[in-house]
Amino acid sequence: MTLSRRDLMKNAGTLALGTGFAGLTLSLAGKATGAGEQPQIKIPDLPWPYKKLDPIAVAEEAYRGYYKGACGYGVFESIIIQLQKEIGFPYTMLPLTLFVVGQGGVADVASVCGALNGAAHAIFLVTGGMDKKPREASYAIIQDVFLWYEQTALPDYRPKAPKYEIVKSISGSNLCHVSVSKWCKVSKFKSFSKERSERCAWITAAVAKHTVEVLNTYADGAFKITHPLSAVAQSCRGCHDKGSKLENTRAVTDCGGCHFTPTMKQEHPKL
Amino acid sequence: MTLSRRDLMKNAGTLALGTGFAGLTLSLAGKATGAGEQPQIKIPDLPWPYKKLDPIAVAEEAYRGYYKGACGYGVFESIIIQLQKEIGFPYTMLPLTLFVVGQGGVADVASVCGALNGAAHAIFLVTGGMDKKPREASYAIIQDVFLWYEQTALPDYRPKAPKYEIVKSISGSNLCHVSVSKWCKVSKFKSFSKERSERCAWITAAVAKHTVEVLNTYADGAFKITHPLSAVAQSCRGCHDKGSKLENTRAVTDCGGCHFTPTMKQEHPKL
Repeated sequence: MTLSRRDLMKNAGTLALGTGFAGLTLSLAGKATGAGEQPQIKIPDLPWPYKKLDPIAVAEEAYRGYYKGACGYGVFESIIIQLQKEIGFPYTMLPLTLFVVGQGGVADVASVCGALNGAAHAIFLVTGGMDKKPREASYAIIQDVFLWYEQTALPDYRPKAPKYEIVKSISGSNLCHVSVSKWCKVSKFKSFSKERSERCAWITAAVAKHTVEVLNTYADGAFKITHPLSAVAQSCRGCHDKGSKLENTRAVTDCGGCHFTPTMKQEHPKL
Repeated sequence: MTLSRRDLMKNAGTLALGTGFAGLTLSLAGKATGAGEQPQIKIPDLPWPYKKLDPIAVAEEAYRGYYKGACGYGVFESIIIQLQKEIGFPYTMLPLTLFVVGQGGVADVASVCGALNGAAHAIFLVTGGMDKKPREASYAIIQDVFLWYEQTALPDYRPKAPKYEIVKSISGSNLCHVSVSKWCKVSKFKSFSKERSERCAWITAAVAKHTVEVLNTYADGAFKITHPLSAVAQSCRGCHDKGSKLENTRAVTDCGGCHFTPTMKQEHPKL
């Protein structure tokens, strides 16, 4: 049995990449490749290429995504699905459902806000890497998004076809637990109400939009920190964080949400 | 020009998957596929198949992984790299460097412990899914691992060739900020010392080991919750969480670390 090169191309039914036969392998075009079958494709290392995206289109997709796979999925998927359209491989290789786990502060534990966790993963994918330089550059962007989130009255994006109108609140924290509690206090809605769920859908849209705006700025080589740590928290770090006298903790967040709040009668120990 | 099927197999230099020519496509065997080139492989949806792993081998790999890519990477990579060996595809398609971002409570922000974030992603990958049933089943496992972490004196695994000996502490929280602060208080070491870094390497090993033990139990169909929320926190939830009178927050964690601690003079408002 012989096959001409032309027959082979026709039979393949897929785009020939022009690499000649040396690179030929068998794969399962048009259906899911099963576990245990070993396709010969290597995934490139980080950072993956980024193409500037439309923040509004991403925000609308994130809002829809929230109602499918919650906050973490909503942010991550809304960005990656656009990059799948614009760039394709390797974005098409990601199991997007994995990022559902960010839901409700990781698996409904109410730890780090899922929208932020999804944003952090998306940002690191396109700016980060194992080496110190891309790692630290990426962390600077992620920290700026986290501090924007805790310092800004959110949600600051209204989806085009919302279920309810949503009031804004300032979380003062990157935690789902605090962010939800603060919004419940301002809105008077319960923490498992449909309105709170809608609020988190708006938050998902707002975080996705802001993330893309920041990434677009980064792509232009124009990224700079816009949300530094508050002066009060900087002062706390002066005694407690890296390189300080006590150096007994670490954090890039406001401290006052948990420590020495006005409702606490506790004061800072004498210096 | 003609090529026999035998020639083709030889030229391909890769494992033929026995699907005949209908599935033929061109890919770039033996080197990284570049961005923009579109291989015809579909990644299966979650959950991905799991094969029981050796918890000690995973723990040792996690300890090494910590010194390469920090806590989140250490836990995630140590499990996935074993599944790459045991199962191969689709685990070979994951960009493992992405999970570096869990470092120091997400990009050094000191929010959710990176070891836990990595564990949550690994657990969801092999047990979760978009549908309610696998999603909730997976969350139950993840929550049990989170509560084990905050209730247990850790690290409870000593790597075979450690740099230093490490004392244990109980975090009472899933947060990097709290976990590190508590350990600094017990050990008297600084939060950016080499000893604290070693402690987090041990934590990474301990979380990876425990995660695999739990997943092995799940694979045997014998998973059950071993670390329920404390009775005190259950009592708090009775008024503040889902389905309660106030329903003004959400959390699956101990409350006493931040609210109404012995050092606070604040008491709970009158009921």
